[in-house]
Amino acid sequence: MNPRISKRMTKPDFQGEFTSRILKAAGDPSLISFAGGLPNPESFPVKEMEAAVSRVLERDGVRALQYSNTEGYAPLRKFISDRYATQGLEFSPDEIIITNGSQQALDMVAACLVDPGDEIVIEKPSYLAALQTFHLYDPRVLSVGLNEDGIDCDELEKLLAEHDPKFIYIIPNFQNPTGLTYTQAVRDRAAEIFRKSGLVVVEDNPYGELRFRGEGGKTFSEMLGEQVCELGTFSKIVAPGMRIGWIACKNKALYEKLLAYKSTMDLHTNIFGQMVLAEYLLDNDLDAQIEKIKVMYGEKADKMMDCMARYFPQGVSYTKPEGGMFIWATMPEGLAAVDVMEAAAARGVVVCPGDPFYEEERNVRTMRINYSNSSDEAIEKGIKILGDTMKELMAK
Amino acid sequence: MNPRISKRMTKPDFQGEFTSRILKAAGDPSLISFAGGLPNPESFPVKEMEAAVSRVLERDGVRALQYSNTEGYAPLRKFISDRYATQGLEFSPDEIIITNGSQQALDMVAACLVDPGDEIVIEKPSYLAALQTFHLYDPRVLSVGLNEDGIDCDELEKLLAEHDPKFIYIIPNFQNPTGLTYTQAVRDRAAEIFRKSGLVVVEDNPYGELRFRGEGGKTFSEMLGEQVCELGTFSKIVAPGMRIGWIACKNKALYEKLLAYKSTMDLHTNIFGQMVLAEYLLDNDLDAQIEKIKVMYGEKADKMMDCMARYFPQGVSYTKPEGGMFIWATMPEGLAAVDVMEAAAARGVVVCPGDPFYEEERNVRTMRINYSNSSDEAIEKGIKILGDTMKELMAK
Repeated sequence: MNPRISKRMTKPDFQGEFTSRILKAAGDPSLISFAGGLPNPESFPVKEMEAAVSRVLERDGVRALQYSNTEGYAPLRKFISDRYATQGLEFSPDEIIITNGSQQALDMVAACLVDPGDEIVIEKPSYLAALQTFHLYDPRVLSVGLNEDGIDCDELEKLLAEHDPKFIYIIPNFQNPTGLTYTQAVRDRAAEIFRKSGLVVVEDNPYGELRFRGEGGKTFSEMLGEQVCELGTFSKIVAPGMRIGWIACKNKALYEKLLAYKSTMDLHTNIFGQMVLAEYLLDNDLDAQIEKIKVMYGEKADKMMDCMARYFPQGVSYTKPEGGMFIWATMPEGLAAVDVMEAAAARGVVVCPGDPFYEEERNVRTMRINYSNSSDEAIEKGIKILGDTMKELMAK
Repeated sequence: MNPRISKRMTKPDFQGEFTSRILKAAGDPSLISFAGGLPNPESFPVKEMEAAVSRVLERDGVRALQYSNTEGYAPLRKFISDRYATQGLEFSPDEIIITNGSQQALDMVAACLVDPGDEIVIEKPSYLAALQTFHLYDPRVLSVGLNEDGIDCDELEKLLAEHDPKFIYIIPNFQNPTGLTYTQAVRDRAAEIFRKSGLVVVEDNPYGELRFRGEGGKTFSEMLGEQVCELGTFSKIVAPGMRIGWIACKNKALYEKLLAYKSTMDLHTNIFGQMVLAEYLLDNDLDAQIEKIKVMYGEKADKMMDCMARYFPQGVSYTKPEGGMFIWATMPEGLAAVDVMEAAAARGVVVCPGDPFYEEERNVRTMRINYSNSSDEAIEKGIKILGDTMKELMAK
């Protein structure tokens, strides 16, 4: 049989090809991988989770195994709502939907807003799996550059004067892939620009709580209220394997559509995991858990930046993240990240070339380097090999 | 802000409206509900699941909480593959993808096959949440009638001679909503008709293992091999709250697309739940668990059919299921199921009118009545009220 595949699944899938390669490399224990975006498993609260499961099953076992509602487990939504309140953000539990990781929330937003040919805006570069999801809906993808201080507001203003996109997708804190964070000045100006337009702002904030240095800025949700869909996840602060994220949305019309769509996709997120996670969150000190991760990632980021300073050739610049999981390196003109990746992989080190994070540019000289899930020894050894590889290719 | 919702989410959503009402009614403890499709929680293996969680977290806690692969947990896929083998079905673990319940598998199939305007075929009536999912992809939906012995093969043959649909969606065992099962003669003839056409056969089999009486027939997967996408779930035989189902597909081209799409949707199904479920399945006797459910549902079905014989007015016919969870009642001409539902709901009993299970027909005289999740007392009381309600409306 020759199944007649739909057009949406026969488009060339540049990002998907890269995702598969990254996941494969990340799973090969013989390689040093800076290519993925895995949290460090040393931070996982395994013992605490075991205690939480026992309490849930003993007290409420039947409920944890039965069908449940699409919105998600009420105490979990209340926990998220309460935590937002401590951060100056008002979202009632009824404005939150629990999703299968925030990846599903990306699909929900795109499905509910985008018709074929509609314009959407992303940062340049942007998260590759978001690009991949958005492309299923056949949008016209516009990009706005990122600077050291955040999104390029001049470019943004010009673009929104000429276009009328359905939504903009932004990651203002420790962006994936660049590690960059918007300054408050950029946030203020971007919020002003957004306010004048009719677009939905999709604010993805998986890493915001992982600030190991410096001061953060306001969320766009705080500044713009119902214009924003706020995406969050427990993947980076507790554990990703449970696939529990959320979308918070004050706009009732959009919320209803997101909920109806989620119901059609898979009825609801696994309630067993939701109840176990809620129990864990209520019985433990999440701030202490996050502090543990921040100390770990801060040390790893410092170690990696220190190694880059020592081993990378002159002319290679890189971002200096104050949180999150990634560093973004830019090599001199003439080098292509895919070539460096291939050469380094042959020596046992994998990184993620910048290419799949762009809508159009290929053979770029940027790359994403992850530090969260490598030992100090692997960082030292891997960054040296990577630097040596760059030097050799530059000498050619 | 006035978000500009996509066309796919602004179409009138008849099925969705009903699903919401059913879920609400099913959640109201003051009502007797035959409207939903909930497994009986008395069958849930809570203690065994608790033991499984402890073993997983103690042995493999980090893995259960980390990101994982899109295909799903290998030992769980192997379990499914091995169980299929005992049923005469050959699917290697590499031909199986674990999904967030089989609801997600329905979306995966539609997304990978259907372009706007493409034809698809469903049984008449068919599972309402499948209809709802398929409609997201803007297909032209064709229906083939169901008889007591299964799909109407004359109608099917005629339809496939005149049309070229991308896929047909069938539930050959204890169908939702009718409880009907294809005889082997119908299976043989339908398989012959399918073999001559180029369509994909999507065989959904959530209830197949819940046969409490009589003999089953061959699956279309066994008869047609790679032409079939076989959907399964643990929701009805273990517990639905974990949202763990699967799709099995021997066609490599389609399998690759299904996998890529699933990856884009949510990366992977929660690995924590997958590992706990696999541990439960390997350490316990699933056949004994299923036997427990079959005895329970068989008794409830008998009780309900007995009550229907006593309390339903003359002229109301109903299916006599040999397994599964549903009975399908047909009232005499002139009665509308939505009217009966409203009148019965006012007296504390909820059923699901047939309307949302059809692509086009409305104000039908059929209704779905669920017996799996009600006590004997509730069945006695509820069916009497339902019968009385019918009698009163017939007298008008």
